[in-house]
Amino acid sequence: MEPAPVRVGVLGCGNVGAALLILINEQHAAVARRTGLALEVGAVAVRDPGRDRNVPVDPGLFTDDPASVVANPEIDVVVEVMGGIDPAHRLVVEALERGKPVVTANKELLASHGSELYALAEGAGVDLLFEAAVAGAIPIMRLLRESLAGEPITRVMGIVNGTTNFILSRMAEEAMPYGEALAEAQRLGYAEADPTADVEGIDAAAKAAIMASLAFGVRVTADDVYREGISSITSEDIEFAGRLDHCIKLLAIAERRDAGDGSNIGVRVHPAMVPLDHPLASVRDSFNAVFVEGEAVGELMFYGRGAGGRPTASAVLGDLVNAAGNLRRSHGARIGDLQPAVVTPIEELESAYYLEVEVDDRPGVLSRVAAVFGDHDVSIRSMEQEGLGVEARLIFITHTARERDLRATLEGLDGLDAVRSVGSMLRVVGD
Amino acid sequence: MEPAPVRVGVLGCGNVGAALLILINEQHAAVARRTGLALEVGAVAVRDPGRDRNVPVDPGLFTDDPASVVANPEIDVVVEVMGGIDPAHRLVVEALERGKPVVTANKELLASHGSELYALAEGAGVDLLFEAAVAGAIPIMRLLRESLAGEPITRVMGIVNGTTNFILSRMAEEAMPYGEALAEAQRLGYAEADPTADVEGIDAAAKAAIMASLAFGVRVTADDVYREGISSITSEDIEFAGRLDHCIKLLAIAERRDAGDGSNIGVRVHPAMVPLDHPLASVRDSFNAVFVEGEAVGELMFYGRGAGGRPTASAVLGDLVNAAGNLRRSHGARIGDLQPAVVTPIEELESAYYLEVEVDDRPGVLSRVAAVFGDHDVSIRSMEQEGLGVEARLIFITHTARERDLRATLEGLDGLDAVRSVGSMLRVVGD
Repeated sequence: MEPAPVRVGVLGCGNVGAALLILINEQHAAVARRTGLALEVGAVAVRDPGRDRNVPVDPGLFTDDPASVVANPEIDVVVEVMGGIDPAHRLVVEALERGKPVVTANKELLASHGSELYALAEGAGVDLLFEAAVAGAIPIMRLLRESLAGEPITRVMGIVNGTTNFILSRMAEEAMPYGEALAEAQRLGYAEADPTADVEGIDAAAKAAIMASLAFGVRVTADDVYREGISSITSEDIEFAGRLDHCIKLLAIAERRDAGDGSNIGVRVHPAMVPLDHPLASVRDSFNAVFVEGEAVGELMFYGRGAGGRPTASAVLGDLVNAAGNLRRSHGARIGDLQPAVVTPIEELESAYYLEVEVDDRPGVLSRVAAVFGDHDVSIRSMEQEGLGVEARLIFITHTARERDLRATLEGLDGLDAVRSVGSMLRVVGD
Repeated sequence: MEPAPVRVGVLGCGNVGAALLILINEQHAAVARRTGLALEVGAVAVRDPGRDRNVPVDPGLFTDDPASVVANPEIDVVVEVMGGIDPAHRLVVEALERGKPVVTANKELLASHGSELYALAEGAGVDLLFEAAVAGAIPIMRLLRESLAGEPITRVMGIVNGTTNFILSRMAEEAMPYGEALAEAQRLGYAEADPTADVEGIDAAAKAAIMASLAFGVRVTADDVYREGISSITSEDIEFAGRLDHCIKLLAIAERRDAGDGSNIGVRVHPAMVPLDHPLASVRDSFNAVFVEGEAVGELMFYGRGAGGRPTASAVLGDLVNAAGNLRRSHGARIGDLQPAVVTPIEELESAYYLEVEVDDRPGVLSRVAAVFGDHDVSIRSMEQEGLGVEARLIFITHTARERDLRATLEGLDGLDAVRSVGSMLRVVGD
């Protein structure tokens, strides 16, 4: 049987777009054999069509007018890999309204306008697929949308930012200070000159919003996500974590807060202490992983490359093949109606906590410190004391406590005469 | 919108079937909300319909005639969780011929008759889904079929048998001999009274055949799979592996042998030494994991529960929801035409090897031993010698060599006077 041609319009030709054009060319025959679809690149929208890009595409297909690609009746499927909100938002809306399936890798767009776009795609009966937007090559979107369609998911925890995982891995394995590890990440191209979006958890928060939406079927935007980055993590934090058989990871966590329809959720991004025998602890360097907990399925973890042109392009191509296949059968994958979310504020969430406190080393101090925990209903699971001359360092791990109570404990400790400083506070996850 | 009813016929009500009926009942509302489908159990075929099974199903729906369930025009989708080849094979064929989508967890059936059944489903334009047949709750089938549809996969390596992974974990972590670890697995219900299918790799070989078929689009049956089990692994093997910073895992490996259409493959199940920093090394107890390597995607790993009623039922329910959704849109997921496979025999495959040899401890022996390696083109990567009185133990790790050459080396060593015994040989994977 002659493979059915599917004409693809690509918006953007950066790192991912160029890798996609190469991959489509390499995999053309294999895709045709396995799916009966002949993918043909019909147009590529770029800023400067004259530039030589070293991709296997007829130079005549480049254009600087992305709207013309979307409007072109010859184009069957639109791939958006330009990034940013504008004009990507307008172009994706336009494509969906014209009944064209869209594949995008744009996490910002989905984290801010996802709910509108999912509904638009559903109304038009076409696919909006975005595997590459979260955790790069890891097919977590399809898992949440399809494989776990019948699963009562309780929690999704991800290492979804490769830059910060690289920095934390270097700090732990080479005993490198934060600044030096960041500089190495920048030298190797893992971190941008301005690393804010990565190290402050902004990138991870966008991905957390998308994961929460799909895992629980609710409308969540990046603004709903509580967020702390890794820039205040010190070498000492890493060292103490290691002594307690833990490591420190930046986690994006979405969790169900009720047994009901899943609309009451918590969603947050922050560094966390993770036990060394937890599967997430073995995720090193710039790798990503997503850990899913469900009532029936138990624990699942998905691990892979979170970024990079070719891995991301592979995820885009997987979506493209599926969107093209669905197009020929004239239906789209559906996400279902997203419910409004009730996002529980961080103060009401529970966790175990790690606390480091420096105190005067004299009799009676520990009892006064412990009393502050008790006053705020925070129960201590373990304590280690280390003498430092006239002062002592106390390391506490608490049982599960409410964030609000923990914060009150911190304030109470700060007010004690014998407390010289309250150092790091880290949430302990996965014990 | 009123959810569309989908009537499900379930064949078998053992561990997985019972868990599925409970899960359908629990998740009914959530599935309806998210997918618009109302799953209704229409019939359950069992051996003894009179037995009380403590599942939330009207007792009147039980029947001892599975053929009547398949033939019933009221039944839209058939779930086969009875296991075995007969009568499962006949029933699945009958259902597909009647145009009914089938969800099955039956690895034996697929490893022997998969190719016929995939073609039948494709011809009928309905789904044949079998996520639960390989690696239980891990959605590896969907990943290979859909997410990686455009990916040039080079290798798939799985820990796909929980029983053997439990035994090997106990041997390593508690320094338990094989027999004792097996007995514990039996006591805990992880191993059957007759553990042959697990410990000799028969179960894993069936799964390897299914994974190879989907990863490379070729026809592979369980008989094509080279197979060694774990019953000859000793505590000493585990200890030496540990000293070399490796662990021992039973791996199911399917790999592409050419850059062409993927029809030339290797497929095998055997114990392997895996470096401790490889993601597969952290897969402990009865957990499963599948590691996928692709040219574009890089390395991916999927980790989760490989067995157990509820985790497996979750995978079946995910398939059921997807099959039901596709039914209403009247099309089925496709696998594509499987090519005939050229399965390379184990003798022609390459690996690094671990070898333990006991020799007389006198001058000149090492050089004669080393000469045997050289004579057969096997290059030594590292050697450790340990004195044991009048004899010495030599531990070799080779560079990548052909299995045929390695076997000739073993024979050559066996023929040397100074060699008292050639002990364990293990393939080293993932270095």
